[in-house]
This record gives sequence, C-alpha cells and structure tokens, in this order.
Amino acid sequence: MNERNLTLLTDFYEITMANGYFAKGKKEQTAVFDMFFRRAPDGGGYAVMAGVGPLIDYLENLRFTDADIAFLRNKGFFQADFLEFLRTFRFECDVWAIPEGTPIFPGEPLVVVKGPILQGQFVETMILLTVNHQSLIATKANRMYQAAKGRGILEFGSRRAQGYDGAVLGARAAYIGGCSGTACTMADLRYGIPAAGTMAHSWVQSFDSEYEAFKAYAQIYPDQALFLVDTYNVVRSGIPNAIRVFNEVVLPMGFRPKGIRLDSGDLAYLSKQARTMLDEAGFEDARIVASNALDEYIIRDLMLQGAAVDTFGVGERLITACSDPIFGGVYKLVAMEKDGRLVPKIKISEDPEKIINPHFKQVYRLYSKGSHRAIGDVITLFDEGIDESRPYELFHPDFTWKRKTVRDFEAKPLLTPVFAGGKRVYESPGVHEIRDFCRRQVDQTLWDEVKRFENPHRYYVDLSQKLWDIKQNLLREETRKYEV
Amino acid sequence: MNERNLTLLTDFYEITMANGYFAKGKKEQTAVFDMFFRRAPDGGGYAVMAGVGPLIDYLENLRFTDADIAFLRNKGFFQADFLEFLRTFRFECDVWAIPEGTPIFPGEPLVVVKGPILQGQFVETMILLTVNHQSLIATKANRMYQAAKGRGILEFGSRRAQGYDGAVLGARAAYIGGCSGTACTMADLRYGIPAAGTMAHSWVQSFDSEYEAFKAYAQIYPDQALFLVDTYNVVRSGIPNAIRVFNEVVLPMGFRPKGIRLDSGDLAYLSKQARTMLDEAGFEDARIVASNALDEYIIRDLMLQGAAVDTFGVGERLITACSDPIFGGVYKLVAMEKDGRLVPKIKISEDPEKIINPHFKQVYRLYSKGSHRAIGDVITLFDEGIDESRPYELFHPDFTWKRKTVRDFEAKPLLTPVFAGGKRVYESPGVHEIRDFCRRQVDQTLWDEVKRFENPHRYYVDLSQKLWDIKQNLLREETRKYEV
Repeated sequence: MNERNLTLLTDFYEITMANGYFAKGKKEQTAVFDMFFRRAPDGGGYAVMAGVGPLIDYLENLRFTDADIAFLRNKGFFQADFLEFLRTFRFECDVWAIPEGTPIFPGEPLVVVKGPILQGQFVETMILLTVNHQSLIATKANRMYQAAKGRGILEFGSRRAQGYDGAVLGARAAYIGGCSGTACTMADLRYGIPAAGTMAHSWVQSFDSEYEAFKAYAQIYPDQALFLVDTYNVVRSGIPNAIRVFNEVVLPMGFRPKGIRLDSGDLAYLSKQARTMLDEAGFEDARIVASNALDEYIIRDLMLQGAAVDTFGVGERLITACSDPIFGGVYKLVAMEKDGRLVPKIKISEDPEKIINPHFKQVYRLYSKGSHRAIGDVITLFDEGIDESRPYELFHPDFTWKRKTVRDFEAKPLLTPVFAGGKRVYESPGVHEIRDFCRRQVDQTLWDEVKRFENPHRYYVDLSQKLWDIKQNLLREETRKYEV
Repeated sequence: MNERNLTLLTDFYEITMANGYFAKGKKEQTAVFDMFFRRAPDGGGYAVMAGVGPLIDYLENLRFTDADIAFLRNKGFFQADFLEFLRTFRFECDVWAIPEGTPIFPGEPLVVVKGPILQGQFVETMILLTVNHQSLIATKANRMYQAAKGRGILEFGSRRAQGYDGAVLGARAAYIGGCSGTACTMADLRYGIPAAGTMAHSWVQSFDSEYEAFKAYAQIYPDQALFLVDTYNVVRSGIPNAIRVFNEVVLPMGFRPKGIRLDSGDLAYLSKQARTMLDEAGFEDARIVASNALDEYIIRDLMLQGAAVDTFGVGERLITACSDPIFGGVYKLVAMEKDGRLVPKIKISEDPEKIINPHFKQVYRLYSKGSHRAIGDVITLFDEGIDESRPYELFHPDFTWKRKTVRDFEAKPLLTPVFAGGKRVYESPGVHEIRDFCRRQVDQTLWDEVKRFENPHRYYVDLSQKLWDIKQNLLREETRKYEV
C-alpha cells in the first residue's frame, strides 16, 4: 500500500505548528521526540513491537506534491514562504526504533526522532498511526499464539477489518505476532504471507446437495479437499458427506483428504465428534479447522476442554483486537536544543500517569547470563551506557525503596538506528524473519510469569539514576511555579 | 484512496470458489446474495448505513491486472482458461443498496447483489469490509451525536486508527454519522470534511514558557487563537496565560479569541472553572473544547454534570468504535437460478441465530402518516409490494402471536438500484448531503425509544406472510432430512 501519497494523512495541527515553527524561525532548532505507550492491551504483561517496515516506507518517500500544496494554500492559513519550503521538503532526522517482533513494555521509548523540530513534529501522526496499529494486532496475535500452544492460527478477518489497510497491514502484523497464514490474498501478494481458503456456505448452497457440492470441489481440487461441514447439520450431514467424498473422489484420484472446517456450534463437542468419525473412517490425518468469533480466551478454553482442533481460524476478534482495540502510543517532545546543547523537557498534565520521561534516551534490556531470560529494561540517557562488568542496581521509579541488584547480566540496547540525517541506515527484515525473531524472543527470553493472561508479572522498566534525577529536578522546578 | 488496485483484497476462498464455478460451468448461473447484520453495536436500537460511495468506486473499477493474474498463476491452483477469463473480467451484476445515512436494523438486507454467481461471490469480501467498517463508525458517531445534544463533535482519532484507511475513511464515516469536523487533513483533501487543529503539548514545551508559546501562536494566527491549556497546570498557568495573550495579542490585533482546549483532568470541573475565569475576563464568547478518551457515555455524563464544554474532541474511542469494534455484517447466498427461475436457498447452521432469510427480497419502511415516524420494516419478496391503501398486519417472525395492524401508513422501499448489469445507475451524494440526510432520518423518523442507549425498544423488522411461508417450508424441508 506504500506507493500511495500519504503526506496529508496527518492531524491538521501538525501543519499549523509546522507553519508556526517556520514563522518563528525555529524550524531548524533540534528537538527530540519519543514514541511510547502507557499500558499493554488486555491487561497483558507485554506487547509486541511492529510497524517499523511500513514506517520506513513512509518516511523515505515523504514529499509534498503540487496537489498537496495547492490544497494547503486554499485553506488560507499558511504563509507563502512556508508553502514554498514544502516543495523541497525532505525528511532529514535521525530515527531509532526497537526492531519489529521485540517484546516491548510500557514507558520505554519505541521510536526516537531527533532533528529539526518542524520535521520531527510533522511525522507524529503517521508514526503513531503505523506503530500503534501494527503493534496492536501483533500483540493480539501473539496472545492467541500463546493460547494455541503450537497449533496453527489462520487470520480470517478481512471482512470485519477497520478499512482496507486494516485488513492487509493487519494480516502483516498478525503474521508477525505468530499466525501461520491468512485468508487475505493481498497480504500474500504484498508480503508473501501464505494465503489459503477453500469454500464458503454459498458454495455448498449453490449445489443441489451438500454431497454434490463437496464432490464438485474435490474433483477440481483433489489435493485441497477441506470441506465446510456446517451448512445444514454437522454430524448427520456434513461429516458423513465429507467422508463419502473423501472415499469416492479424493482417494481414487491418489490424494489424502485435507480435512474439514467447523464454523458454528459447540466447537469443543463437535470437533471431538468429528475426530472420532474421521478416525473411524480411516482419516486420522484429516485436519480439523475451527472458526467462529475465536479469541485467545476461547482458544485457551477449547484447549482445556481437549477440543480436537488442529488449526484455529480467527477473524474479527484478531483483526480488530476486539477486546481492547486501542494501542495507546503517544509521541512527546522530550528535549530541545538551546544554545547548542539539548535541554530536557517535561510535560506535567493534570493526570500523573501522563507525565513523561524527559530527555534523549536509550533503552537497555538486561538478560541473565545463565538463563538468557530478560530481567528488566533500563531507560538511560542516550550516551550513558551500562557497565556489564559490575552489579547494577535497579529501582522502581515511583516506589524507590523497591530495589534489586542484578549480577552476571548482558545489557543490550534496544533502540536501533533506522535513519541518520534522513538517510535510511537500516534494512527492514521480511515478515518471515520478523515472525521467527518474535517467536524466539517471546518463547526464549520472557518468563512465563510475564506472559500469563491474568495478573501477569509487572516487568521492570526502570530509569537510570541519572535520568531519574533529571526527571525529579524538572518536576520540582515546574510544579514549584504553580504552588499557591 | 480509490485509485488503488484493491482487486486482490479478497479472501482467498472467493478465488478458489470462482475458479470452481468456472470449472463446473456454473459461472453464468444467476445467484442472489444479501448483505445483512445480526445486531446493532453497543446494544443499540439502530445502526447507520454507510459505505455505498466507496463500494461503488470499487465495483466500478474492478479489474484484474497482469500482476494480479501472474500472482494467481504462481499459486498453482487455478486453471489456465479461468486465469485468461479474469483478463477481461468486468462486474456485470445488479446491485441494490440502502442509501448511506439511513437508519438500519438487524436482519434486513442492506446490499443485494444479483447476477452471475462467480461475480456475486467474488465481491463478498470487499462489500463486507467496506460496509461493515463505514457503518460501524457512522453508527458510533451517531451515538455520540445523540449524547452531545447539538454541541459539536470533532473527530481526532487518526493516530489510534486501525490502519491508514481506518483514519481517512473512518473520518468520512464519522462525519456522516454526525461529527462536525475532523483533525484528519486527508479527509478534508479527499472528501471536503472540514479539518482543523491548533497545537500539541510539544508546541507549548518547545518555548521557554507557556506564555511565550501562546503569544507566538497568537501572533501567527490571531484569528485562530485556541490554546491547549493543560501542559503544566490548567487553573494556575494555562487559563491565566491564555487570558493574558487574548488581551495582549489577540484583541489588539482586532480579533476575538477562539478559546481553549482541555485534554486531561476532570473535564466537568475544569470546564466550569475555565468558563468562570474566561467569563470574568470578558471572554464569554471563547469556546471550550474538551478531549481525552471521550465516548458517548462520558459525553452523556459530562452533559448531565453541566460541563461547560462547547465542543467535544473524540479520538480513539470513535475511530475504533472501541466499546464494540465489530460491525458483524455477513453476505449470504439467498437464491439460485434453476431451469430459468430463481429458487430460494437457506442455510441452517448449528446456531439458530445464524439461519438466514431466503430469496430475492426488498425492504419497506412503514411510516405513520400522522407523525412521519418509522413504525417498522417489512422484508418482502422483491416484487411483492405493499398495498398502502389497506391495513397491514405485522407479526413477529419467531413469536408469531405478537401481531400489530398498521393503518394510515406510507411504505417506502429502502433498497435502491445502484448497478444494473454492471452499469452504475446511482449517483452517490457527497458527504455533506449524506450527513444532513442522516440527521433528518435519525432526528425526525426514529422514536426516542429506539435511540436510547440502555435497553432500547426493539424496532420491528418483520417478514411478509409470503416470505415467512417460504422460509418455514425450506426450514422444514431441510431439517426433515436430518431427523433421526
């Protein structure tokens, strides 16, 4: 979807402010912006970073067309020299991002943009839109991946997605998060995500009988015989007709049947019934696909009930992240150049949880050298570094008496350079590589306590002593001004 | 967003089935498909139809490019003559749809497609995706419009939308449903929806003080002075600084200030405080905009508490329809040509609520001649008609003893011809016209009992006697086959 001109897909105030920075001679002043989120969806203990690939496409191709500029001129708000300046606008900032597929946690910077304030400001809407959406769906898919314990998950949700990109880019994020395939053909065309699908109820209805519908399908696709068995009656009609066609058409043509799909009813009961009937007919290898408003909770329950489902087809509740459909990433100014040096900036807000971490920062993930599990993340000043050769004392940023000394650890920086002076310095991996990376990260570095659905362990995201001091000083300085 | 080639934005099974119909010589056999939905979001009493405009764009431009066909060939599933046939594929069906902005109810056909089964089947995914998404957001916006009782609602949600179209097309649907404007610049460029916006917290932070930030803004935009007042402290800093700049900059330049925006804290309390402070300073005409995770319930409560909010800025909870983010429209085969005549088709399913209404149908809305309010909808056979000159007996399709005789009514067909033989026969109105139409429909034809949020009156959607008889006969016929 990236050949599109998305330049004006931006909140109008980004342009009002851009013109304002331009008018005030501030457009080249260096600013640092952070994207971060405040809580993981569904009360989960982690989220999955996604969206860097599409974000790179956007930033690399950011241009104002003549039509864009003509539209802005017509609004009558903007100076002529600003509009002229947009003609040659190119993105020139430095950007760091946490690579796609990495487990991420509230409060840490996911994307950092450093450069002329006009530019860093302007890209806010698209950074948020891209990373929020992709991370939302990748996180939801990863929860389903956890629940399915190795069984396959097919993403089926295009028809209920929130817009066209919701379907196609949603399928991308779902795959990154752990799905095994998609029904969305365009996601296969664009990203190489394996698309599959056989028949709808309408195929079955369009023949004089279910048996004839299955037979016709098997004759055309003898190697893809997977029948939807719930158009009339699963146990009395669907499965018997499937078995009959497996025997009459599929086997004689030299193939093994693929299986059946259930799309309604009690999936635990029906899948076990279906398994018995298929096994008794000699089709132990026929797979059972189940769909119908599934999510991670229903998948978990089906697994607990011993449902004989080999592959879960998940639609609307994945593609919209139904139970918590917002990934609340925000983008805040954290530092501003003054007299040649970066000055940390804070925002207080009426809501304490909306207070930000000031300054230009890096995030380190601390891994235990023994287990290779992640112990916690530490947000530091960008150039501060962490000395792995000594014990490191973590402390809770609010309840500072909660302390833990970490030994024998490795500290890996998470924010990776993506653009330097507007030039791309990072090659986004393909979706298959990102998906594998995500699985390894989630399976091998996160403790189960962080991954459980109910009351997950709160993973440490702490501040270095230096950063904590700067934040406290700024908070004291700012709030003192408004004391009565 | 319509210049894009969206042809392969389709569930893979639509193509598998298309190739199957082609292979079985059924591709020209006439079929009728219905799109309908089963329940209104958020337990509401109605929904708002939307999506016809974008759907027309899609159907009118539906082509398979060489790249599409090459991709499909590579999948190795499809016959050479089918792929050749796609090269000259043009949409040739008849389509009827309920016009955008119309209140709609569960069970009634929203879109009807009649034509070659291969074609009617293929367009399933995009019809559902388009109408589901647009109707979801239009419905949510209309609920907020109800709650706001005439105060303005600005759509602010791009950054939390589910993908790029989620933002732009979402803004379109939000406007249709009753929003007064958007922050999404591209929605203005594409649809002429008024986009607006002033400043983010980062504008305020980027200056040495809040006062300087407001002053700079007012100097550039003296006629657009609307300040975000919650970066540090609303009552002690934000509002006093706003008033100071109104007096020092805005008035001397010959303008009246626009107002302030609150984005955190207790909006009821702060808005009343702000109103008092602004009024006392002589700015009774300064408007108060409030935002921060608003939805129809919070707006209703703010109104009940007498919040002095003139305009509500709604973001994530509108653009994702957060509390119920799925519009569950489905698309089902309802009739099939056999020996030159249409035969009604049914689908039973394991879930009784998934049973469909068979046959080629029309929907009539019955209006009381006195009040012009809508009494109920009746689904009939397509050519059946309703005789307005006689009393009409409505009856509940499940509890058939519930009956009501309607007199002095007008019956208007809702399904309007959109395509005839693939040729467009309908001009989609612009968004402003649709929005006005929606307001009139909702305000003037729906009873308040249907519009309330809690336990709304269940609006009648009944079947004509003829259609009811056909459905019962089919149900009996089909289920009899599986009796033990």
